[in-house]
Amino acid sequence: MKNRDYWLRQVPGIPDTEFLRGKVPMTKEEVRVVTLAKGKIFPEAIIYDIGAGTGSLSIEASLLAKDGQVWALERNPEAIELIKKNKEKFQVNNLEILAKEAPEGLRELPSADVIFIGGSGGHLRDILMDCLEKLNPQGRIVLNAITYETLEQTLNITQEKKLVYEVVSVGVSRLERVKDIHMWKGLNPVQIITLTRKSNKE
Amino acid sequence: MKNRDYWLRQVPGIPDTEFLRGKVPMTKEEVRVVTLAKGKIFPEAIIYDIGAGTGSLSIEASLLAKDGQVWALERNPEAIELIKKNKEKFQVNNLEILAKEAPEGLRELPSADVIFIGGSGGHLRDILMDCLEKLNPQGRIVLNAITYETLEQTLNITQEKKLVYEVVSVGVSRLERVKDIHMWKGLNPVQIITLTRKSNKE
Amino acid sequence: MKNRDYWLRQVPGIPDTEFLRGKVPMTKEEVRVVTLAKGKIFPEAIIYDIGAGTGSLSIEASLLAKDGQVWALERNPEAIELIKKNKEKFQVNNLEILAKEAPEGLRELPSADVIFIGGSGGHLRDILMDCLEKLNPQGRIVLNAITYETLEQTLNITQEKKLVYEVVSVGVSRLERVKDIHMWKGLNPVQIITLTRKSNKE
Amino acid sequence: MKNRDYWLRQVPGIPDTEFLRGKVPMTKEEVRVVTLAKGKIFPEAIIYDIGAGTGSLSIEASLLAKDGQVWALERNPEAIELIKKNKEKFQVNNLEILAKEAPEGLRELPSADVIFIGGSGGHLRDILMDCLEKLNPQGRIVLNAITYETLEQTLNITQEKKLVYEVVSVGVSRLERVKDIHMWKGLNPVQIITLTRKSNKE
Repeated sequence: MKNRDYWLRQVPGIPDTEFLRGKVPMTKEEVRVVTLAKGKIFPEAIIYDIGAGTGSLSIEASLLAKDGQVWALERNPEAIELIKKNKEKFQVNNLEILAKEAPEGLRELPSADVIFIGGSGGHLRDILMDCLEKLNPQGRIVLNAITYETLEQTLNITQEKKLVYEVVSVGVSRLERVKDIHMWKGLNPVQIITLTRKSNKE
Repeated sequence: MKNRDYWLRQVPGIPDTEFLRGKVPMTKEEVRVVTLAKGKIFPEAIIYDIGAGTGSLSIEASLLAKDGQVWALERNPEAIELIKKNKEKFQVNNLEILAKEAPEGLRELPSADVIFIGGSGGHLRDILMDCLEKLNPQGRIVLNAITYETLEQTLNITQEKKLVYEVVSVGVSRLERVKDIHMWKGLNPVQIITLTRKSNKE
Repeated sequence: MKNRDYWLRQVPGIPDTEFLRGKVPMTKEEVRVVTLAKGKIFPEAIIYDIGAGTGSLSIEASLLAKDGQVWALERNPEAIELIKKNKEKFQVNNLEILAKEAPEGLRELPSADVIFIGGSGGHLRDILMDCLEKLNPQGRIVLNAITYETLEQTLNITQEKKLVYEVVSVGVSRLERVKDIHMWKGLNPVQIITLTRKSNKE
Repeated sequence: MKNRDYWLRQVPGIPDTEFLRGKVPMTKEEVRVVTLAKGKIFPEAIIYDIGAGTGSLSIEASLLAKDGQVWALERNPEAIELIKKNKEKFQVNNLEILAKEAPEGLRELPSADVIFIGGSGGHLRDILMDCLEKLNPQGRIVLNAITYETLEQTLNITQEKKLVYEVVSVGVSRLERVKDIHMWKGLNPVQIITLTRKSNKE
């Protein structure tokens, strides 16, 4: 079994196939890498991963914030089980799993430097409002939107709260080998939204 | 049951859901529409559809070339059955099914104005060579490439034969409703290659 | 100069380079073709093209609705001049230019079978409301959205009015030859929204 | 002026606007981030950046390989000047500029852990052959292909040399604010090719 030192040298960009995933949907490698980069994780960062799914993003974030702390919020028991197994596989010791449905549980956490939102279970407004209260002045919120509604609600809140924002849509196709030929396989596009406070603008 | 007159007013752009398709892969509506447009079908056009699959492209081509003739070449018995059923559903009478593996069968056909190549079963070079012999001077060949190899081989032959060519890659995402939310679903990208003779250039 | 009969055989899918365009932005060929297909134009169709720009869509629509009538609404004088020139070039005689800013001018028009909306100049809600009044029961409205706001406002009205809708995002890349090499050039993605009345659903 | 310690906490994912770029084409942020991730840079890595352009990738690689060394090969004097200025701005001290046209200059370099190829000036085969000789057994070569020919030639060499490869195409659109509206702007798609030796496969 590879130890934490091995995986520390592999981030960001651990291949999807390394993660235990069951039937839980997982952010794909290339999107995960861009998402992590938008978060500008530093070694001591305090990070939340809301709607953590398989924990693939939490794991990579834990390795990047190697002297910091990551909280993974997830309500689905099957997914929680996977995060536990992935945590063990990748030997990360700075990742805490909160088996709660956000925004519940957010208020007890220490304030955050980076907040990733991968899923919101229909509570996006409440989650974003609570996250904004917990976010450090220089902090960043990064959402992965696969629905129209996530983009819509986030842009609305962005305007209400006069936040600085950036939206990119990332579409990845992979060339897959099938016998002697290579087929292009399209993945679902993901819209990556980054939010910071006005004071954060340089 | 809707008659041919009804369907004549629906082309191009018959929704995918109208075609009987079984488990045979089908070119998606938006890609089919662009492919048909690149073919510049006119009412009396003589058309081949090589690797016709479900026959969705053949059907729309038959309706557009309403005074012309379409030959659908297909080797897969399951697909041939589907083309027959679709031919019946859409009431087209100018579509002939050739249950052969191209390039076999091509030589006996009358010369063509438009040739669509959706699948080549590993015989792309032979097929393209035979198609070029059968193609009328102002004719057009339009390929749908979902593999790297189809683009590679076609560009090679294009240079050998000094053909005029155009390549576009079309990536479609559909906003799908799931309960109260809308998710973006990515389809596989398709490269649409159009070939004409040099003399064809204006 | 090519006459109308020539161009009648070229639609849909007239190459972008055939249109006179000046500095006015133009819907690209592949997007125009999908847009036209979503409109399901028939020979006698009555069509509006709102925010007609260079008139490329109006021209192709006029040729497809060869026994029908197209109204092109456009407020920009430079664009109006281009539509006139394109109308002359393509020899279409069933295209009328309305030099007005929609929704102004819509009410006097006969009811429509197909309404294309390419630009709304900030009046999308008013335009859509008036268009819904003018639209025949089986009619179709097709919007080309290049902004987030067009999709947002259209989906809002869609829900208010309980319309049937479909949204696809089309991303096209073209392989362009530069000396001996071929570069992939990405075009801006366009979201194509099709609206019909509930009663229209089969 | 921000010092190296500041920038060390910003990688990967320094915004495009931070780099001095003149008229030299630059890999865009999201593509740069995925490219860096595919390289699996570790702190002591020895890295080449061939066809370094503005040096944006070289700079980020230098910060990620903070105890390693990066060589940026570039032949264009205007680009070399930019790399120098960017090197100064970002205060990196482990980036060496080689004003040569690859593969010239490669042989004198120490063997590499990671080789990025952003441009090849028509010498891709020679460059790849030399790179394979210089690459450490566990090393990785990552190419950014914007042309069809780069993918074609790389796949050919991959088969000859029985390398392990992965190809992804990344298409990014950015939502840009123009007054009160947000427009989707498409960037050119980039194909990111990662090569490793067979023995590297786990």
